[in-house]
Amino acid sequence: MTTDVLPSYVTGRWVTPAADGKAVADASTGRELCRVSSDGIDLAEVFDYARTVGGPAVRALTFHRRALKLKELAGYLNDRVAKYHDLSYATGTTKRDAVVDIDGGISTTFVYGSKGRREMPNDTVYLDGPTEPLGRAGTFAGQHIYTSLTGVAVQINAFNFPVWGMLEKLAPTFLSGLPTVVKPATSTAHLTRAVVADIIESGILPEGALQLVCGSLPDFLDHLGEQDVVAFTGSAATATALRSHRNVVAGGVRFTAEADSLNFSILGPDAVAGTEEFDLFVRGLVTELSVKAGQKCTAIRRALVPAALMDDVASAVRERIESKVVVGDPRADGVTMGPVVSIAQRDEVLRSLKSLAVHATFVVGDATASVDPVGADAESGAFVPPTVLRFDDPWSDAAHDVEAFGPVTSLLPYDDTDQAVRLAARGKGSLVGSVVSHDPAFVRAVVLGTAPWHGRVLVLDRDDAKESTGHGSPLPHLVHGGPGRAGGGEELGGIRGVLAHMQRTAVQASPAMLTAITGRWTTGAERNEAEHPFSKSLAELRIGDAVTAGPRVITADDVAHFAEFTGDTFYAHTNPEAAAANPFFPGIVAHGYLVVSIAAGLFVWPEPGPVLANYGLENLRFITPVSPGDSVTVTLTAKQITPRETDDYGEVRWDADVRNQDGDQVAAYDVLTLVEKTKHR
Amino acid sequence: MTTDVLPSYVTGRWVTPAADGKAVADASTGRELCRVSSDGIDLAEVFDYARTVGGPAVRALTFHRRALKLKELAGYLNDRVAKYHDLSYATGTTKRDAVVDIDGGISTTFVYGSKGRREMPNDTVYLDGPTEPLGRAGTFAGQHIYTSLTGVAVQINAFNFPVWGMLEKLAPTFLSGLPTVVKPATSTAHLTRAVVADIIESGILPEGALQLVCGSLPDFLDHLGEQDVVAFTGSAATATALRSHRNVVAGGVRFTAEADSLNFSILGPDAVAGTEEFDLFVRGLVTELSVKAGQKCTAIRRALVPAALMDDVASAVRERIESKVVVGDPRADGVTMGPVVSIAQRDEVLRSLKSLAVHATFVVGDATASVDPVGADAESGAFVPPTVLRFDDPWSDAAHDVEAFGPVTSLLPYDDTDQAVRLAARGKGSLVGSVVSHDPAFVRAVVLGTAPWHGRVLVLDRDDAKESTGHGSPLPHLVHGGPGRAGGGEELGGIRGVLAHMQRTAVQASPAMLTAITGRWTTGAERNEAEHPFSKSLAELRIGDAVTAGPRVITADDVAHFAEFTGDTFYAHTNPEAAAANPFFPGIVAHGYLVVSIAAGLFVWPEPGPVLANYGLENLRFITPVSPGDSVTVTLTAKQITPRETDDYGEVRWDADVRNQDGDQVAAYDVLTLVEKTKHR
Repeated sequence: MTTDVLPSYVTGRWVTPAADGKAVADASTGRELCRVSSDGIDLAEVFDYARTVGGPAVRALTFHRRALKLKELAGYLNDRVAKYHDLSYATGTTKRDAVVDIDGGISTTFVYGSKGRREMPNDTVYLDGPTEPLGRAGTFAGQHIYTSLTGVAVQINAFNFPVWGMLEKLAPTFLSGLPTVVKPATSTAHLTRAVVADIIESGILPEGALQLVCGSLPDFLDHLGEQDVVAFTGSAATATALRSHRNVVAGGVRFTAEADSLNFSILGPDAVAGTEEFDLFVRGLVTELSVKAGQKCTAIRRALVPAALMDDVASAVRERIESKVVVGDPRADGVTMGPVVSIAQRDEVLRSLKSLAVHATFVVGDATASVDPVGADAESGAFVPPTVLRFDDPWSDAAHDVEAFGPVTSLLPYDDTDQAVRLAARGKGSLVGSVVSHDPAFVRAVVLGTAPWHGRVLVLDRDDAKESTGHGSPLPHLVHGGPGRAGGGEELGGIRGVLAHMQRTAVQASPAMLTAITGRWTTGAERNEAEHPFSKSLAELRIGDAVTAGPRVITADDVAHFAEFTGDTFYAHTNPEAAAANPFFPGIVAHGYLVVSIAAGLFVWPEPGPVLANYGLENLRFITPVSPGDSVTVTLTAKQITPRETDDYGEVRWDADVRNQDGDQVAAYDVLTLVEKTKHR
Repeated sequence: MTTDVLPSYVTGRWVTPAADGKAVADASTGRELCRVSSDGIDLAEVFDYARTVGGPAVRALTFHRRALKLKELAGYLNDRVAKYHDLSYATGTTKRDAVVDIDGGISTTFVYGSKGRREMPNDTVYLDGPTEPLGRAGTFAGQHIYTSLTGVAVQINAFNFPVWGMLEKLAPTFLSGLPTVVKPATSTAHLTRAVVADIIESGILPEGALQLVCGSLPDFLDHLGEQDVVAFTGSAATATALRSHRNVVAGGVRFTAEADSLNFSILGPDAVAGTEEFDLFVRGLVTELSVKAGQKCTAIRRALVPAALMDDVASAVRERIESKVVVGDPRADGVTMGPVVSIAQRDEVLRSLKSLAVHATFVVGDATASVDPVGADAESGAFVPPTVLRFDDPWSDAAHDVEAFGPVTSLLPYDDTDQAVRLAARGKGSLVGSVVSHDPAFVRAVVLGTAPWHGRVLVLDRDDAKESTGHGSPLPHLVHGGPGRAGGGEELGGIRGVLAHMQRTAVQASPAMLTAITGRWTTGAERNEAEHPFSKSLAELRIGDAVTAGPRVITADDVAHFAEFTGDTFYAHTNPEAAAANPFFPGIVAHGYLVVSIAAGLFVWPEPGPVLANYGLENLRFITPVSPGDSVTVTLTAKQITPRETDDYGEVRWDADVRNQDGDQVAAYDVLTLVEKTKHR
């Protein structure tokens, strides 16, 4: 029976190619699920639609509004997970595997919905780092900004995470202001399609922000240029072919890859049999082997074990696999590991297994891959048994070069820390490594030694085991990607993943122009002191609105009293001789805390008004000491205004500049307040 | 007469190739200066020496020690600038041009010497961003770190900045922990050689940190891998060839390029003849045209002018060039513009000029490049007259695609802001753009519109003109590089340029392990409260050393008194009804400033001791309001210790954690102090 061809969503409509396309089968039963083709889809048109319809619509929203849409989207999809879980079985995944993909993808979207509002301004320009003064008189300064690209982001995804793979790229990309075109892997495209269908139906994202092309994307790089981004996940060979395209090497396409990775996990010499760490290591190995039937870019391929502990680890791993791993159709009761995604993938794994086996012995499994799957027919499904190899020579090339992308891992002995670090580096760059040990010196040496070769390193021990998310799980908060063979890309990492899709530009200008460009008041720009700015709601307040208050003389009595009242009797405030002997003070000086408290007393607006609370201070520096008899004057200037989308108030950051009677700066800091959007009182 | 072959400095010694090599001539006289060859140099050996001798020696130093060496180096070279200036004339540069190259390079080294100590820890690991909590119980957290690569940095430099080009790459690279191999452009290699000879003789950098290979580097990429960095400056064609090498597309070599760039400068519609901005624009155009005879990657190639102002600009530019630009041998009196670097380069400029001229008319100069140089023979020297073209069709491809790398610029008319932004983008990605206008709305639209296509944008107006460093000058504080055709790389940008040469890794661990790995105390790690940490000098203090002090009850009288004493009579501290109506407060609450002042009174060590001063606070957040009658307890923990290399004290950052009687966090912040290295009192 011929099944339906999956439709693609392009240029605002669902299109079903006329061609037959490529058949996709259920991983366990071999039954045909659907067919996939991109026949007749005009990619130039798709990208153009993204650039002219999707991009401008996304960029019309501030970061906070984009983040809110992600939050809404995550909630919408979360209400529909059962459907995705049902569809996921056909790809060979167990319920537990599908949670990683489906719920993990949704949770990533939630995190970006939250971080985008907490860590980015409610604006369309992101400021990077402090203003750099470039001249003594303060008329010329630099500020790095990030702006949105005007092109399109193209996702080329791997088969193993049809939902997470799409959402972990979509969330930061959408936040950055780019429209996305998703190309799912053919063998799991039907699940991606189901999620995209719901996203489109929800109407949450602006039209054009997301398009889906199922099937191949022949010559898609021909249509991309300097403002476009390609995020590829898959084999190193395909990554190399794409990276060699003239539009990448010469045409300015921003290409990032997340490719082959022979990740390591190392057991510390302290973690002998019987320790918690030994058990954690063995459990981690078996988990990474069996989750998604080992089809994870982050799975452990190289387990580095102290030579003396090889036998113990081998038998513990064998025992655990035999008692815990049940291979079969994931729809059948008791099954803990499904098939790999397809017969072709199984054959690929077996080929790799054969070239590994030349140099190793089998601890679990053998090269024949004979398996008796529960609830399935070994012939029809793509089953591979869990397989553990043991290398006696840890420098064997195969162990470090051949990635069997299935339930396969290798045990390698090591003699000392330095050798272990060098073995880890033989992976030529990996996504993730892990260290299982409770010895801080060993952990420090391995982490710092392997960090240059890895995008993420996990330390697992008795202290963090309970909360640890494990070796194999990329988190939205942390960078995912690795150098060298792992592709050299960085994804996720919180806001880092957003900025990776934007252009950083150094802007040089006068303070007034920097203020106009960035929307943040810059020291040296004009102030408006016509009205006390604390009397203004966000509706009325403008950056540059300011108040200058003072002077107030700080007397010797004030200092002595403050010392006594607060208990802060530090000698510089109480003992003239000792104070004068201090290299930084001329004699008794006022407490810094007294100076900022008095400054607050000067600029305060006592009556109820739009300013609700001072929730913090940042970057406070005490610059010139205040001696008794000095007077202080403070100027407070509205620096940045961040209305909240979902509250009736927002954050206002104020520049506080405290000067003495000679005009010398005494203290500088940012005051953080919550201010009502409109006046209630 | 055959001149000497330039020696190279490799594997710890100066080597002079036996081969004749390529002849280099004086740009003005044509006299042979020297010969250049890399014959007989074994690059594999050079890179291996860098990796095994130079790299470990550099990485044995902390960031601060590396920075101090840069400072020392800058001072050393600064004492020898006269020699470099003398040598520079032969490359065709005037005294003013040479200042940009030589003094500019040294000043960049100084800036890194300073920023490395001010903005980096005195350690070998750099922490990126805050710790990310990854579990509710606080036993699992993430921290991004940067570690040094273990490979080699290879500089492939352009001819136009033989000194700056080397130093602007060397300074951040050395700070990052990488050894460098410099390959200067052949036509100006003798000047680079002279500077490297002094650097080596100074003995300031560790042996192996810097090697010099004059001449070509055939197949150098064959010897590089995942931990190596190539920083290329030159033509887009060469960049493309290098970027296509298998070790870049598949082998993980980190390749950055700074290539062709058709930079724009735009005159605002407000800046009509007679305004300061009009004059600044014209002056800037002529300066960028004549400095280094226009051989700057950052020179203005495309001057965008309001259509109505084209005639005014054309005549003002002509007039200024005729009155100010004197072409000749830069050693001759009165000469303001020298030749280009070589006859070959002159011929290349003339070829580009011809293809531009097909679509344009000449405002200044003509296609014959006839020139009567002062103090030189037009036939022997590489002289090109200043040339300004005028395009009537601003969309002409040639204007946006052909970079005549000499004293050549084009005037292009534009009609409105949107068109101007689109014209700027036709450069397909440039290093720098500039906007000359005093209209904030126009400036904002152009800067934000062109930013996605540019690495740097300068705004020039009457306010910043006096201090502005101009369109063409990259600064060490700001990113240099541009997307798309400009090569896609980023150099400089302060510490950004250092981090660009390091590997970022997300580390996941327990607080104790994060503390051990990063050298910074992480919330949740153990504390040591045996002794008051303020009694300890840096020699005795360890991260995690802590004191818990309190409780102290904050009474209603305390709050009332503090309000009266400081003048901070905000209603939340003084008026029970109004306070209770505030959405965040239960009633009257203590001032945040009172809480931190009392906390200081609790943890203070009053007697003279190693702690010299509290110079600031960071990241202060008031979390739970404190009501009268609540008590507060503070725990202060040594978080990060930064001894200064050149003072007898250093910075200590303390984690301050203030809790109420229920254990709720009231305030959290970092206290910044200066602490003596050893006890003096």
